[in-house]
Amino acid sequence: MKIDSPYTFRIELVIRWKELDALNHVNNAQYFSYLEEARIQYLNTLKLDYSITKENEGPILAHVSCNFLSPVLYPDTLSIGSGVTRMGRSSFDIDHDIFSHQQNKIVANAHSVVVMLDYQTGKSIPINDEMKQRIGLLFSKSKK
Amino acid sequence: MKIDSPYTFRIELVIRWKELDALNHVNNAQYFSYLEEARIQYLNTLKLDYSITKENEGPILAHVSCNFLSPVLYPDTLSIGSGVTRMGRSSFDIDHDIFSHQQNKIVANAHSVVVMLDYQTGKSIPINDEMKQRIGLLFSKSKK
Amino acid sequence: MKIDSPYTFRIELVIRWKELDALNHVNNAQYFSYLEEARIQYLNTLKLDYSITKENEGPILAHVSCNFLSPVLYPDTLSIGSGVTRMGRSSFDIDHDIFSHQQNKIVANAHSVVVMLDYQTGKSIPINDEMKQRIGLLFSKSKK
Amino acid sequence: MKIDSPYTFRIELVIRWKELDALNHVNNAQYFSYLEEARIQYLNTLKLDYSITKENEGPILAHVSCNFLSPVLYPDTLSIGSGVTRMGRSSFDIDHDIFSHQQNKIVANAHSVVVMLDYQTGKSIPINDEMKQRIGLLFSKSKK
Repeated sequence: MKIDSPYTFRIELVIRWKELDALNHVNNAQYFSYLEEARIQYLNTLKLDYSITKENEGPILAHVSCNFLSPVLYPDTLSIGSGVTRMGRSSFDIDHDIFSHQQNKIVANAHSVVVMLDYQTGKSIPINDEMKQRIGLLFSKSKK
Repeated sequence: MKIDSPYTFRIELVIRWKELDALNHVNNAQYFSYLEEARIQYLNTLKLDYSITKENEGPILAHVSCNFLSPVLYPDTLSIGSGVTRMGRSSFDIDHDIFSHQQNKIVANAHSVVVMLDYQTGKSIPINDEMKQRIGLLFSKSKK
Repeated sequence: MKIDSPYTFRIELVIRWKELDALNHVNNAQYFSYLEEARIQYLNTLKLDYSITKENEGPILAHVSCNFLSPVLYPDTLSIGSGVTRMGRSSFDIDHDIFSHQQNKIVANAHSVVVMLDYQTGKSIPINDEMKQRIGLLFSKSKK
Repeated sequence: MKIDSPYTFRIELVIRWKELDALNHVNNAQYFSYLEEARIQYLNTLKLDYSITKENEGPILAHVSCNFLSPVLYPDTLSIGSGVTRMGRSSFDIDHDIFSHQQNKIVANAHSVVVMLDYQTGKSIPINDEMKQRIGLLFSKSKK
């Protein structure tokens, strides 16, 4: 399947009937679970998985937004692209698009901001050099 | 409980243990279900509930974003404020904040764009006068 | 509201629109989240909350079943009754009913088996005397 | 992968991180969504999909139970087997097992009762001959 997307890292998700809502299409809030799954697997490729990090510091999701372009029906399989699109001092951005196999087009795109946090103080901290290098690697590879 | 918020329309939600994730706080995607509940009840006050509208046209969620300010733990009760903050020709904005009773502070704020849609063509249509009046009523009442 | 139920311990849950499925009533799987919420709060009253227990042993859910008597629509508030109905050597049963305020009747009842487990070995262990006393207390109080 | 199971009809599900709970394993209630997905696809093979049936009568889930044999961790892929194990006058049973690819064993089994319902009266009705034939087909094929 040809997906017209700038992202080289992609995961596939088979949607579940439960994820529909009473309007008979995938519930808006559910997209953020799909994006989370994509983000975890993406960060995982560089051992940045925030679901695993149990140390005193780690990345947390500070912001996420999604544009809903076309409703998703059941059944369908989605391909979700992910790419780092900005790296700052203590935060970086990950952008996504969601491609529907049934509709053969992008049905949503999303933007998220991940902040490196000191879990004790709850304050953001500079991304350390090792992480910077890893994220930089994602950055350079995120676009085809 | 004194809630420092600009929104006069508020709903209360008691969080469920299931809504935590493996990090032991309320999952990010779950916030969008809370916001949806707030939006439905808010629009419902003016008979604009998009979950019920079954005609050929109606409001759909085109965009939503959320800033996560502080993690929510279990148990907690949330108060979610909602207000129309912009009205355009075929769309309007609803902003929200989420207040934690346990933490006694705003733990997230959110922004959403609702578009009036012709369900047949999938295109946006102008908000008709009656709806404009209703939304305008929300608009004027949204801020204390 | 008069609830014709044998259980003295009850929690109230306000259902969410998200918990409907494409058939426009509360999804079957969702009932088990409601029951879980009831079970946690019930066990919590005797400091038996399995969501908190972090020691080497604790109660785990081994079996749960539910009879769906009448579909639940939105909006509604549910009252869930819980009671210990059997105590064995290493396990005990909790039964539930779910009462709909809208329908003014029991819409589901459920049965669950909780087993005391050694987390290291994954084997069931005898309920210790202190727990037995606490559960016995639930037992005796479970029926009006 | 060799799955020691009596069921010839199987679906595969890739679990999502969101489906874990605060105990770090797949939440108990989530199993019932997995089972629902299996049931829908199973019934769908004979055009009995209750999620689609919109006529005046159709199958509804009257009872479901699950035995939790071993917790499921993330990531994992599950194979869910389904088979009709009883056919009555107005109801039939579907049994399931859930096999974990990570653990290479059955981690849960389940039993459900589906009743043919007249949606207007809310009463059960005899399974008509065409359905009987279709369900009978499932019945005979359910065991290897």
